[in-house]
Amino acid sequence: MRPPEDLTAVVNVGDDVVLHGLHVSPDIDTITYTLAGAIDPERGWGLAGETWHAMEGLRRFPLARSWFDLGDRDLATHLYRTDRLGAGASLTEVSAEIATAWELGCRLLPVTDEPLQTMVTVADEGEIGFQEYFVRRHHDVVVEAVRFAGAEAATPGPEVLGAIADAERVVIAPSNPIVSIEPLLVVPGVRAAVEARRPDTVAVSPIVAGAALRGPADRLLRELGHESSVVGVARLYAPLAATLVVDEADAGQAAAVEAAGMRCVVGPTIMRGLAEAAALAELVLAA
Amino acid sequence: MRPPEDLTAVVNVGDDVVLHGLHVSPDIDTITYTLAGAIDPERGWGLAGETWHAMEGLRRFPLARSWFDLGDRDLATHLYRTDRLGAGASLTEVSAEIATAWELGCRLLPVTDEPLQTMVTVADEGEIGFQEYFVRRHHDVVVEAVRFAGAEAATPGPEVLGAIADAERVVIAPSNPIVSIEPLLVVPGVRAAVEARRPDTVAVSPIVAGAALRGPADRLLRELGHESSVVGVARLYAPLAATLVVDEADAGQAAAVEAAGMRCVVGPTIMRGLAEAAALAELVLAA
Repeated sequence: MRPPEDLTAVVNVGDDVVLHGLHVSPDIDTITYTLAGAIDPERGWGLAGETWHAMEGLRRFPLARSWFDLGDRDLATHLYRTDRLGAGASLTEVSAEIATAWELGCRLLPVTDEPLQTMVTVADEGEIGFQEYFVRRHHDVVVEAVRFAGAEAATPGPEVLGAIADAERVVIAPSNPIVSIEPLLVVPGVRAAVEARRPDTVAVSPIVAGAALRGPADRLLRELGHESSVVGVARLYAPLAATLVVDEADAGQAAAVEAAGMRCVVGPTIMRGLAEAAALAELVLAA
Repeated sequence: MRPPEDLTAVVNVGDDVVLHGLHVSPDIDTITYTLAGAIDPERGWGLAGETWHAMEGLRRFPLARSWFDLGDRDLATHLYRTDRLGAGASLTEVSAEIATAWELGCRLLPVTDEPLQTMVTVADEGEIGFQEYFVRRHHDVVVEAVRFAGAEAATPGPEVLGAIADAERVVIAPSNPIVSIEPLLVVPGVRAAVEARRPDTVAVSPIVAGAALRGPADRLLRELGHESSVVGVARLYAPLAATLVVDEADAGQAAAVEAAGMRCVVGPTIMRGLAEAAALAELVLAA
C-alpha cells in the first residue's frame, strides 16, 4: 500500500453551484467524504448518518428551491467554504483546509480557482446549469450540447500542472468523459500537460459492457455522437493516455481498443468496496 | 382580542449580519418565531426543538467562525432569505413570505430594505458589528459609541411610513432604546412619522426598577450618558410618545416621568407568558 501522501487528485469544479448563497463543490466534497470514509455508501454522495432538518424547514416556503438536498452536517462544509472564499481564500486553499480537517493525507486540487461552469443544453428547456440537469432533471432528458462557461479565461490551480508533470503515473479515473473529465482538460494548459505525460498515463474505462455503472455517461456519449463502449472511450482518450484499462466483460474488445490507438489492459474494474478499489489501483499502477 | 391582521410590526434590521454567505435577520426571525409560537422559550431566540448538526460540523474546521449559533431548522430561514434576496426580492417581500409560511396573519415590515448596520465601538477593540458585540463578546464589554452605518442613505420600506401614519395606536415596544429602537428612528422619515403621531404613541419602558429584564439596555444607557431608569427612558422618548407605561415597581417615579414630559401609566409590564403579554397589550391600547 502506498501512503496517502503519494496521491494527488485534480478535481472537476464545473459541477460547482451557488445554492442559497452557499458555494457547493459536489465533486470535491464527494471525493473528500469518500477518502475520509464518511460518505453515505447507499447514496454515493453526502455524509453517512446525515440529518435533513434544514431541508425539511426549507420546504415550508412555497418559493424555495429545494431540489438539491443539503444535509445538515454537509451544510457545515458549504458554510465554511463560502465564509472562507468570502474572506479571500482560494478554492485550492479552502479545499486543502477541508481535506486537512478530514485528515485525508492526500492532496486534493481543484483544477482551477476561477469560475468554470458546466452548462448543458437539453432538448426541451435550452441551456441549464449542470446541477439543474443532473439533480433537478435527474439527467433524464435528451442532451444536445455541453459547454464549459469560463473555461477559456480560467487558469489551472497553482499546483495542478506541476502535479501532472511530476506524477509517477497519471490516472484518468473511470468517471464521465463528457462532464467530469472534459471540464478538467478544457482549462488552458491541462490537456497539454496530460498529453505530455501520455506514455505514463492510464485511463480506466467508465463504460463496462456498453453501459455506465452509475450516472448518464453511456447516454451522454451516444447523444453527443460517440460510441458507448470501451472503443468509444479509447477514441476519446487515445491522444491523452497510452493505456486503457477495461473490465473483463470487455475483454473481447481489446483488439478494437488497440486499433483505436491505446494499449489495452483487461482486469476487474468494478469497485464494490475498498478491497476491489485497492486492487484496481494496483492494476493501474502496474499497467 | 384583536385579530392578528390588526397588527403591523416595524422591525429593526441593524442587527442583520451576513454569516457564511447567509443573510441573517435576527430581529425579524425572533419576532416571526415568537408570533408563530415556535420560538425556543428558554433561549428566547431560535426554534424550539432545534438540532445543531451543521454547527457541530463547522467546529471541525479550525478557521471556522462558529460564535454565532445557527440551528439546523433555523438555517432554512436564512437559506431561503439569501436565495430570494439573490433572486432580486426585497427584504420586505421575503419577510412577508416567511411570515406567511409561518401563518402569522400580522404584517411584519423591515424598517428599510437597504443596508443599515448597527456598529458598536467597544473600549478594547474599536468598532465592531452588532452581532460581534452582542453574541461574540456577549455584550460584556464597555461601549463607547453606537453608529448606524448606511442610515442616512436608507429609505423606509414601502409600507413603513403609511403603517405609522394610519395606525390606531403606535407602540414603542419595551426594547433596547439604543440598539433596537434608535436604528428604526434613524431611517430618514421614520422619526418624523412617529413624532407626527405623538398623541397616539405609547412607549413601554424596557427598564424596570433601574435594570433591563434581559440584555444590555441598562448598561448601554449608563455608558452612553443616559439614566438607567424610567425617567431616563422618558427623557429619550418624550419627543416621540405622549405616554410611557412603566412597571408597578416604578410607580414611585410616575411624577418624575411626567416632569420629563410624558404621561405616565403604571401597570404590570413583565411578560412571563402569553396571558401577561396580552394584558400588557390591552393596557397599551387603552392607555
